[in-house]
Amino acid sequence: MRRGERIQLGVDVGGTSTRAVMVDAAGRCLGLGVSSAGNPTSAGPERAADAIVAAVGAAAAAASRDVKDADRLVAAIAGAGGTPGVRLREALVAAGLTIPVVYRADLLGMYCSGALAADGYAMVAGTGAVASSVRGGELAALRDGLGWLLGDDGSGYWIGRRVVRAAIGAMDGRLPETSLAAALLDRLGIAAGDDVTEYGQSRALRQAVDALYSLRPVELAGFAPLAFDAARAGDEVAVHIVEAAGEALARTLHGVLEPGVDGPLVLGGSVLSRQPDVAGRVVAAFRDRGFAGDVVIVTDGTLGAAVLALREAGIDPDSEMFERMRTTLAALRDA
Amino acid sequence: MRRGERIQLGVDVGGTSTRAVMVDAAGRCLGLGVSSAGNPTSAGPERAADAIVAAVGAAAAAASRDVKDADRLVAAIAGAGGTPGVRLREALVAAGLTIPVVYRADLLGMYCSGALAADGYAMVAGTGAVASSVRGGELAALRDGLGWLLGDDGSGYWIGRRVVRAAIGAMDGRLPETSLAAALLDRLGIAAGDDVTEYGQSRALRQAVDALYSLRPVELAGFAPLAFDAARAGDEVAVHIVEAAGEALARTLHGVLEPGVDGPLVLGGSVLSRQPDVAGRVVAAFRDRGFAGDVVIVTDGTLGAAVLALREAGIDPDSEMFERMRTTLAALRDA
Repeated sequence: MRRGERIQLGVDVGGTSTRAVMVDAAGRCLGLGVSSAGNPTSAGPERAADAIVAAVGAAAAAASRDVKDADRLVAAIAGAGGTPGVRLREALVAAGLTIPVVYRADLLGMYCSGALAADGYAMVAGTGAVASSVRGGELAALRDGLGWLLGDDGSGYWIGRRVVRAAIGAMDGRLPETSLAAALLDRLGIAAGDDVTEYGQSRALRQAVDALYSLRPVELAGFAPLAFDAARAGDEVAVHIVEAAGEALARTLHGVLEPGVDGPLVLGGSVLSRQPDVAGRVVAAFRDRGFAGDVVIVTDGTLGAAVLALREAGIDPDSEMFERMRTTLAALRDA
Repeated sequence: MRRGERIQLGVDVGGTSTRAVMVDAAGRCLGLGVSSAGNPTSAGPERAADAIVAAVGAAAAAASRDVKDADRLVAAIAGAGGTPGVRLREALVAAGLTIPVVYRADLLGMYCSGALAADGYAMVAGTGAVASSVRGGELAALRDGLGWLLGDDGSGYWIGRRVVRAAIGAMDGRLPETSLAAALLDRLGIAAGDDVTEYGQSRALRQAVDALYSLRPVELAGFAPLAFDAARAGDEVAVHIVEAAGEALARTLHGVLEPGVDGPLVLGGSVLSRQPDVAGRVVAAFRDRGFAGDVVIVTDGTLGAAVLALREAGIDPDSEMFERMRTTLAALRDA
């Protein structure tokens, strides 16, 4: 390590993958490392710790540095409050991490990937869905984020669940016909056919039901793309699901609107970052309520984790530094 | 056993309890036995077998007979097709049952508790929801019954899930206010209050979310009664849930309507047998489609299991014998 150089580690810890970036005091992203799921609630503290250590190790190696060259590690992470956070901290030490670790909300990491403004709004709709206002650089008023069974209205799970229920209901002759039925069978690798079981329900329906019950419920989120594809092709049932998702997300976002907060709106998660129709609907509804700020769409919280790491080190990136962080991180991603 | 006396055992095997009745060739119910859950899918084959053996043992004891005095055992049961049925059969033998066992559909047992007619309709809405036409004394065309995740539209689970999501969404400030929120907290034993957690969501909300995620999903069916109570008190959100349940059940029932079948409609399960508003809505919608038969509401499938057991023995109960079965079973229940 060069004398006097100050290095930070920002880590965007996700339920699917974990991304670590090493950044210097000038905002240069020096190395990027990616590993597996690091959420301590779903992956467990040991696997989460292993994923985080693997990602920061890869980031340091890519930067030709050592992990312990960094002042600290700032993790943008969900589910690290209370006991899971304590267990994760112990598991990180057990996995050989010696630098201090600071947890920040993953939603705040997402916000800081898109905006430096102290006040604004953040919304993520991926497998789950959550929104918050941001005041003074901190999450202020959270809405939803309450999980597949009780909340996550408009999320990938919410959409995927409706896709499979609409498809199954159509195959069962209870609900309107929809191209989602054929699309679901195709995705499951089940041949459509007229074969019926003893009580008149089709064999394909029974096979689809068995296949879907063999999944964990949250995996139904994987069927959300079927709705987007079918809606684009004009399927009315799919159009209704996608529109309803947009309305549900808009309701959640309305819940965090505060008169004094007119900063940017940062949108993330696959449902918002990859589906312009849904994002457009949510933004239009928010503007109808009086929101007049900029809208930024981000694909993950890696850049924001680096911003949070710099701030933790007493370095407050300005727009010039932010742009340097963005371009150097993009170069690492492309490498 | 008196020489020449022919005895049968009918068993209504349920996901909550199991009821066995011993019946003689004249249709006299001689003994009733009740035990725990006997569904082989949810309880496992060993526990299911134990429950069935306990129920038939109690029924035989109440009749001052022996289980092996019966020609056979006819079980009205769900989920006993394929491997689970084979495993249950093995477990019944291992538990000491020596008489032949015949499986019939639980929905058919429910139908036969209310009607002797060879043709008709059966619908059950308890934790789950399923409907079928009946032709020649057998289930003909089944609809739904596809479980909490993929189907069971309008069932107790379907209603209970909407109750908790509406209550949680209202507490989260995303969905309309409803008395279901206070009712849910009361049911969970959580004090309502203005305490908030770090991101502005109330402590009561977080406690409710934690409590609900500690349940198995299907247990959300237990919150369905909150909707009925709140709807009667005029809560708009609850009224909408109950109305939508009626519409969903009506759709399922419409799916089994057959021009040639004009026999009775037998309704069972707590949502239909205890909620006259829901049952009334479903029946009115069915009549709008052309159904002109009688409607019978039954509380369980015990009487029907006895009917099926007698038929299996070559005895076809007429209306006089059916009435004798009904009154002697009622006397055993009251004893």
